[in-house]
Amino acid sequence: MRGAVIYAPGDVRFENLDDPKILQPTDAVIRTVATCVCGSDLWPYRGAEPIGDPHPMGHEYVGVVEEVGGEVTHVEPGQFVVGSFATSDNTCANCLNGWQSSCLHREFMSTCQADYVRIPNAHGTLVATDGHPDAAFVPGLLAVSDVMGTGWYAALAAEVKPGSTAVVGDGAVGLCGVIAAEELGAERIIAMSRHESRQKLALEFGATDIISERGDEGIARVKDLTGGIGADSVLECVGTAESMRQALHSARPGGNVGFVGVPHEVQVDGEELFFSQVGLRGGPAPVRRYLPDLIDRVLTGRINPGKVFDLTLPLDQVAEGYKTMDERRAVKALLKP
Amino acid sequence: MRGAVIYAPGDVRFENLDDPKILQPTDAVIRTVATCVCGSDLWPYRGAEPIGDPHPMGHEYVGVVEEVGGEVTHVEPGQFVVGSFATSDNTCANCLNGWQSSCLHREFMSTCQADYVRIPNAHGTLVATDGHPDAAFVPGLLAVSDVMGTGWYAALAAEVKPGSTAVVGDGAVGLCGVIAAEELGAERIIAMSRHESRQKLALEFGATDIISERGDEGIARVKDLTGGIGADSVLECVGTAESMRQALHSARPGGNVGFVGVPHEVQVDGEELFFSQVGLRGGPAPVRRYLPDLIDRVLTGRINPGKVFDLTLPLDQVAEGYKTMDERRAVKALLKP
Repeated sequence: MRGAVIYAPGDVRFENLDDPKILQPTDAVIRTVATCVCGSDLWPYRGAEPIGDPHPMGHEYVGVVEEVGGEVTHVEPGQFVVGSFATSDNTCANCLNGWQSSCLHREFMSTCQADYVRIPNAHGTLVATDGHPDAAFVPGLLAVSDVMGTGWYAALAAEVKPGSTAVVGDGAVGLCGVIAAEELGAERIIAMSRHESRQKLALEFGATDIISERGDEGIARVKDLTGGIGADSVLECVGTAESMRQALHSARPGGNVGFVGVPHEVQVDGEELFFSQVGLRGGPAPVRRYLPDLIDRVLTGRINPGKVFDLTLPLDQVAEGYKTMDERRAVKALLKP
Repeated sequence: MRGAVIYAPGDVRFENLDDPKILQPTDAVIRTVATCVCGSDLWPYRGAEPIGDPHPMGHEYVGVVEEVGGEVTHVEPGQFVVGSFATSDNTCANCLNGWQSSCLHREFMSTCQADYVRIPNAHGTLVATDGHPDAAFVPGLLAVSDVMGTGWYAALAAEVKPGSTAVVGDGAVGLCGVIAAEELGAERIIAMSRHESRQKLALEFGATDIISERGDEGIARVKDLTGGIGADSVLECVGTAESMRQALHSARPGGNVGFVGVPHEVQVDGEELFFSQVGLRGGPAPVRRYLPDLIDRVLTGRINPGKVFDLTLPLDQVAEGYKTMDERRAVKALLKP
C-alpha cells in the first residue's frame, strides 16, 4: 500500500509501505475511506517537535473494516467505522469512568495517512455506522474522529452550559468548538479570528461575536463584551504559551478553560492561576465517549463539522496538504485514497 | 487597643495600636470575640514571604458589632457576626456569580489579631447569627471564617461528589476538608498524615484511610487504594511545589485537584497537566457564599470544625501561638482577647 512518511521538517513523502497486518487478536485492519492532516501534524512539520527516524503520519480516519482479530466482535469486515486518534479497550477503569483517552491500554494512532490502517484495541475503539453513509457525510464523520470530538471535549472541559458565554479560536478544532458551544446551549459565542473565511464559518456555526484583536488587546475586547469580568468558558485549542496566557486571562473568576492543543513549552504559574480562580482542564479528548452521540448528530444533519475541510486532495498529494495548511491557505485538508 | 504586629521572621509582638475607626460608609468596626493564627501567617513568620515595614497580622475573626457606617444595614451594633478573610460587596458581577473572594471591591483582611477590627465592605461581608451563640460554638464559627470555608471550597473545587474518593492533608484546612468531603458524600476519604493526634482527628471527622507516606511513596499508596488509577478528588491545602506535584499525581484521569494553599514558587507544566487530564481549580475561597450554610451546620451541631483548635491562648500571648504552630506543636491556635 501507499502512505505518508515524514523525513524532516517540510519533507513529507508519499511512499510504498508494507500492508498492515493483524498483530493482536484485538486488532482490526481498515481500508481508509478518508483521512486528513491535523494541526498537531504541523508541529513536527515546522520543526517544533523532534522527528527522529522517518516515520508514517496521521491519526484521523474513517474507513471500511477489512479484517479483524479473534477478539474483535463489535465490528466486522465490510462495516463503515469511525474511530479515535487514541485507541481504548473501553473496559479498563479509566474507560469506564469515561476517560478512554487515558485507557490503560491506550495506543495513539500514527499511521493513518495511508491506504490501509491497523487499529489496535479495535473492539473498544471503533464504532460502526448503520450501513455505509452517503458520501456527503464522510467529511463530518472524519471530523468526529478528532477535531469535532476534541472541540466537544474542549467545550465540556470549559464547562459550557446553557446561557453561558464562550470564547473560541478559529482553527479547525476551535471552529468545531463553536459547534459544540452552540449545541451545549451557549448564549454568546465569541470567536477570535482575523481571517475572513474563518470568521464566516464561525458565524455559520453559531458564533455571535468576532474579535480580530489578539494578545492583551484581544483579552481587553473579551472583557468589554463580558461586563468587564471575562467569559464563563474559554476553549484553548492551540497549545502555545501565548494562547494559554490569553485563554486564562479571558476567563472570569470561577470560569473555566478547556485546553486541547498539546502544550508546547507552557508553564502555568501557580499563584497566578490561584488568584484567577479559573478552572483548568485539558488533555487528549476522550472521543470514544462521544462517538455514538456525535455520529448521530452528523448523520441526522444536526451538525456539519465536515465544513472545516476547505481543501480536498487525493491521498497521494498529502505533501501538498501539509504545505497548504502550513502556509495557512487552508483550515484543514481532507485526503482521499 | 492592642494587637499583633510582625517585625521580622520569628518576631511577632503584641502592642498598643490606634483604635480602628469607620473610614467608609460601608465599614463596620467589631469587637473581636475570637481570632487565630493561620497556616498562611507562617509564610512571613518563617521568612518565606517578604515582610517589609512592621505591620499588623490576622485575617480570621468572629466578633460583636460596635459601630457601622451609614450604608451598612444588614448588621447592627450588638450583633454577633462571622465574616471572611476576603471582604466583598456581595453585589458586583463576581459576587453575583458566587465568587465573592474575587469581588471587584475586595479587600483582604490583615489586622484581625487585635481587640477591635475595621471590616471594609461590611454590608456584603458580615453575617449575623440569631442571638449570641453559646461559647461552645465560637471556635466552630471562627473556623468557618477561614479554614472551614476554605476546606469546603477545596472540596467543591475538587468536585467531591457522593460516592467519590477524596484525598486530603492533615493541616487545619485539610482537616476541615475531611469534614467537607464527608458532608458532600465522599465514600472514601484518605488522609495523608504522620501525626498521631491529627490522624485521630481526621478519623473522627470522617477519614476512612490514613497514609503516612509522602512524595512518590504517598502517591503509590493512593494508587494502591484506588484500583491503580488515582483518586477522584484531591484537596491541596499547602501551596508548595511538592504538595502540588503530589496532588496532581494522586488524582485519576478525569479527576480534580482543588488547591487552596497560596502557591509559593509553584509552576505547573502544561504538557504534564494535559496528559494527566486532571482538572485544577484554586484560589481564595469564596467563604461568603458558604457562610449561611456553614454557620447553620455549626450551630445545629452537624459539624464541629472548632476541634482543629488544639491550643487556646489569651490574645496577648499571640507570639506564643505563632511559635507553637511554627514548631508544629499545635494544629491551630485560637486567641481570645
